[in-house]
Amino acid sequence: MIKLCLARELPLINGALDEAAASLPEPVRPVARHILNAGGKRLRPLLTVLTARLCGYAAGDVYKLAVTMEMLHAATLLHDDVLDNASHRRGSPVAHTLFDVPTVILAGDALLAVANALVAAFGDARLTLCFSEATSRTAAGEILEIAAKGKAEISAAEYEDIVRGKTAWLIRAACELGALRADAPSPLVDAAAVYGENLGMAFQFVDDALDFAPRAVTGKPTGGDVREGKMTFPLRLYRLSLETAERAAFDAAFSCGLMTDNDACSIADRLRESGCDARARDEANRYLEAARAALRLLPDKPERELLRAMCDYVRDREK
Amino acid sequence: MIKLCLARELPLINGALDEAAASLPEPVRPVARHILNAGGKRLRPLLTVLTARLCGYAAGDVYKLAVTMEMLHAATLLHDDVLDNASHRRGSPVAHTLFDVPTVILAGDALLAVANALVAAFGDARLTLCFSEATSRTAAGEILEIAAKGKAEISAAEYEDIVRGKTAWLIRAACELGALRADAPSPLVDAAAVYGENLGMAFQFVDDALDFAPRAVTGKPTGGDVREGKMTFPLRLYRLSLETAERAAFDAAFSCGLMTDNDACSIADRLRESGCDARARDEANRYLEAARAALRLLPDKPERELLRAMCDYVRDREK
Repeated sequence: MIKLCLARELPLINGALDEAAASLPEPVRPVARHILNAGGKRLRPLLTVLTARLCGYAAGDVYKLAVTMEMLHAATLLHDDVLDNASHRRGSPVAHTLFDVPTVILAGDALLAVANALVAAFGDARLTLCFSEATSRTAAGEILEIAAKGKAEISAAEYEDIVRGKTAWLIRAACELGALRADAPSPLVDAAAVYGENLGMAFQFVDDALDFAPRAVTGKPTGGDVREGKMTFPLRLYRLSLETAERAAFDAAFSCGLMTDNDACSIADRLRESGCDARARDEANRYLEAARAALRLLPDKPERELLRAMCDYVRDREK
Repeated sequence: MIKLCLARELPLINGALDEAAASLPEPVRPVARHILNAGGKRLRPLLTVLTARLCGYAAGDVYKLAVTMEMLHAATLLHDDVLDNASHRRGSPVAHTLFDVPTVILAGDALLAVANALVAAFGDARLTLCFSEATSRTAAGEILEIAAKGKAEISAAEYEDIVRGKTAWLIRAACELGALRADAPSPLVDAAAVYGENLGMAFQFVDDALDFAPRAVTGKPTGGDVREGKMTFPLRLYRLSLETAERAAFDAAFSCGLMTDNDACSIADRLRESGCDARARDEANRYLEAARAALRLLPDKPERELLRAMCDYVRDREK
């Protein structure tokens, strides 16, 4: 069912994205096209379209609104990849290895600015407030994550705050925007937001579990988070399971960025054996339950089934 | 008169800025404070306050709106200094030499996000549209400038486009926001915008002339734009005045970033002797005339005199 929906909606979403990218200043357009065409799943714009339709909005301008979420996401990825000094994303070389760093940073700024202008053009202050809140929450999440880099001892609550900011708020906003554009009554807007936030939390927790899956399954190097000094939910559980001496050795290597590929793989093996990745997926399921509960407050229409199927997609994804 | 006005308004502007900075995520707050306290003249927020008052707006919330322009300006400076690899600004070490680059980039993103949220909180879509237009125009101007770096042959029109984007649009928006908040009739909003855009153009043309003034006058190294490969209005005139062979030598050194401090100083000497800096100031005066003409369309009140005095300040400034 999701596939049918994607087949219908993706061309419209991609068309609106192309149009938005064409309005960027010429020197940064190739950078924007590179990141926008790098195999994104268009999860965020799809959520805006589906929540708008679910709340009864039929007009075609919803695609212009929906793509602002993908543009904000892409802007974030461009800045993040520069800041993380990443070399690849989704198997492709990242932008700053193909273009110079200043152009990439400015491409991120320009994507954000154009997205902001697209939202502003709707002339509805509630949409703008939602968009700007997503921008500042996402920036704050990234800032907290970078500040926490190499810190072995972060609490579960601190970690949740990072995830809520860097991932969940934008997905929440994507759903809220759709409901707001449909002028849904405020309990429905709230329900759409709660659904999105919980779906976003689950998405990141599954992502964190997948970081420890074998490369043969995901196609991505195993244990990237360990090497980059990113403490995640499953890695935190693994660390807490270590004996004192072993934990001290882990902390030393982790905080100094001294983890090798081999270290990361052997940690991943032990982490999976002790079930820490499965517990991250359990946690994701808790969030998905909350997302499904919020969905029950929304109208019983085909789009609601699609939003429910999104929960299954997040739960089951293997890469 | 400007001094009296500054004495009254600056504490209120700085108070609102402090409050906004306090709402930033903790890890980037010191970066934001560094750039916000680095001796900015608060020209932009002052313009918002003055145009709002001139159009009859008395409420105290104008400061919250006004500081968004300083925050957008500061965000731009943070990213620019990283991209230009600058070491000093206004005599102080720039942020990325005191903090790490990721934190500085994210501090820029966060300043922009919080400014956006402050504007959105007014619940007036016209304000948001004005703010988002300023953001995208400014980003586009910087992008064009970076793309033009090291290019000796840019046209006068291309140069004007860069200046309009990187400097003038934000000053235009500062004035427009004030008039919009005051709910001024649209001819007054337009006049405020035209005043601001021309003031901003003049500001940059004077800045470009001052780049060639002796260090003893400005306190800044002479000819920074030459060394950085930035073609400006006076430098363009100077280049066009050169004989073919000399121009070729200039172009080669300029485009490869091979200009030394000595080259820059001797170019500055000759540029001043041939009056190219004076012609940039003439051009600035042309813009200031347009700014004054726009002012005549606005109400005859004390704030109008202050805005006129701003034109004199821009014309006369020596550093």
